Amino acid sequence: MCQPWTVTKTPVCVVGLGLIGGSVMRAATAAGREVFGYNRSVDGVDAARFDGFDATGHLDEALSRAAATGALIVLAVPVPALPQMLGHIREVAPDCPLTDVTSVKGAVRDAVRAAGLLERFVGGHPMAGTAHSGWIAGSADLFAGAPWVISVDDHVDAAVWTQVMHLALDCRAVVVPARSDEHDAAAATISHLPHLLAEALAATAGEVPLAFALAAGSFRDGTRVAATAPDLVRAMCEANAAQLVPVLEHAMLLLGEARDQLAAGQPVSALVEAGHAARIRYEGYSRPEIIATVVGAEGWRDELAAAGRAGGVIRSALPTRGSPG
Amino acid sequence: MCQPWTVTKTPVCVVGLGLIGGSVMRAATAAGREVFGYNRSVDGVDAARFDGFDATGHLDEALSRAAATGALIVLAVPVPALPQMLGHIREVAPDCPLTDVTSVKGAVRDAVRAAGLLERFVGGHPMAGTAHSGWIAGSADLFAGAPWVISVDDHVDAAVWTQVMHLALDCRAVVVPARSDEHDAAAATISHLPHLLAEALAATAGEVPLAFALAAGSFRDGTRVAATAPDLVRAMCEANAAQLVPVLEHAMLLLGEARDQLAAGQPVSALVEAGHAARIRYEGYSRPEIIATVVGAEGWRDELAAAGRAGGVIRSALPTRGSPG
Repeated sequence: MCQPWTVTKTPVCVVGLGLIGGSVMRAATAAGREVFGYNRSVDGVDAARFDGFDATGHLDEALSRAAATGALIVLAVPVPALPQMLGHIREVAPDCPLTDVTSVKGAVRDAVRAAGLLERFVGGHPMAGTAHSGWIAGSADLFAGAPWVISVDDHVDAAVWTQVMHLALDCRAVVVPARSDEHDAAAATISHLPHLLAEALAATAGEVPLAFALAAGSFRDGTRVAATAPDLVRAMCEANAAQLVPVLEHAMLLLGEARDQLAAGQPVSALVEAGHAARIRYEGYSRPEIIATVVGAEGWRDELAAAGRAGGVIRSALPTRGSPG
Repeated sequence: MCQPWTVTKTPVCVVGLGLIGGSVMRAATAAGREVFGYNRSVDGVDAARFDGFDATGHLDEALSRAAATGALIVLAVPVPALPQMLGHIREVAPDCPLTDVTSVKGAVRDAVRAAGLLERFVGGHPMAGTAHSGWIAGSADLFAGAPWVISVDDHVDAAVWTQVMHLALDCRAVVVPARSDEHDAAAATISHLPHLLAEALAATAGEVPLAFALAAGSFRDGTRVAATAPDLVRAMCEANAAQLVPVLEHAMLLLGEARDQLAAGQPVSALVEAGHAARIRYEGYSRPEIIATVVGAEGWRDELAAAGRAGGVIRSALPTRGSPG
């Protein structure tokens, strides 16, 4: 059984040992945690075992052990595999604290709610990756210095939240507290929208004779992410469509105004000055450390959401109300 | 008087000694050419003289010397200063071969035509630059390896074209032959459109709480050029509005289709796959050397325009019909 208020460094059960899950397994082990994991493919299990890690291809075995030790279960499977996986967890380890490492937070929370596991769930999103995938691509250093978003939605439990915070800090990430909907809107803006703009720029240039012949830095930078595998781009954009559509429309509105001004021989000051000001603000963006909040104290979720919105990050564990340390 | 058919390495008269003009003066001098120049500001003249170059603040002096020596005049002043400068050249040195180093080719050609100097004019655009400006920012190496577009419009004279080609090669650039309208459409696509997309992305993110807090590589790359001074971005977009509007509309059409698909829960395959394919094609784009064309032979302009469109570049001087070698 789980004892979250007194034991923050519970065992960790990683479900899915690909790039992210495999890196969590390595990083949490390096931090001295007891870590075990499950992977569907035998190849992934063998590779993890060969590297000295505690991996199994038997889901029930992993989940039963999680239930027996009160492990924090980390969902590191692709979004489409979640519902089935959550059904197994509901059967075998319904009381374990639960988090995930998926790039979309609202849809995952909804799937967890549908499985009846919301009470013990706190979503997470380590914002790190490489162009490669699978166990072999992982690394104990993958999350070092990277933002790891942890959801502070209204439902989240302070004890589980603290456990997820400890896991992220053990993986040497910096924690950004955020509401799921705000995370998804921000991810749409800073990750999914840039992909669509890069695709549109590359596709447009592909239609213009001589464009590639003259292309230099601004084109190269502006289309870099268009080299990402189309399936990955589609999956992330389509999974976050509800948040992506409004920010895409906002960008198109700005571009449409600029188009009208250019066609009328008027200056495009509004767009150019707003864009420049925003980029300069981004370059000077500071990351103050969040230190004053007590997890579980009155209003702690709103307080953390506001601090995250203001750029705040957690670099060392916040105190938790009722926790011994 | 000018003797273009027998003397390709005429003196060079650079009008405007800023970043580009000052770098042409240095690079052509380093190649062993006789180079002299004019600059409006006394500071620029003094700086060039201090560095050992032949500069004057008296326009008539420079242009008279150009007329007497048959020098190739290189227009390196900002576009708004062109009409007045062309008027002076028309008065003092109307028979000299003439080129420019401006980023928009159609508008400059029109100004040259209005001044009655089209017959001896071949437009050029060395695609190099730095974030700084003025004589002090220039360098003899600025054009090394960079594309230098030289116009092959219907009106261009083979002898003048050859002179401009020699200047570009002396500056260690690679020559890309192109029609002015195709150059301007390509520049709109690979330089001006990326600036507008970057501004729209930065401005949109500026409105989304938490966006800067989560921003990483794709946002940083996608907004890098939004840090460019707004006046410069406006000047280049507005000067090329006629070519920029259609490519902006093409990009917006693609984004609009993606928006409709996302809103309807459909895949965004069309945009993502077209963008990916174009970027991969760009990464594998080869730059074959143009060697077979004889400048001045029948159909040479169309032949060079087609070769440039196919990625071809001139790395060593092409033969010219009627030229001794």
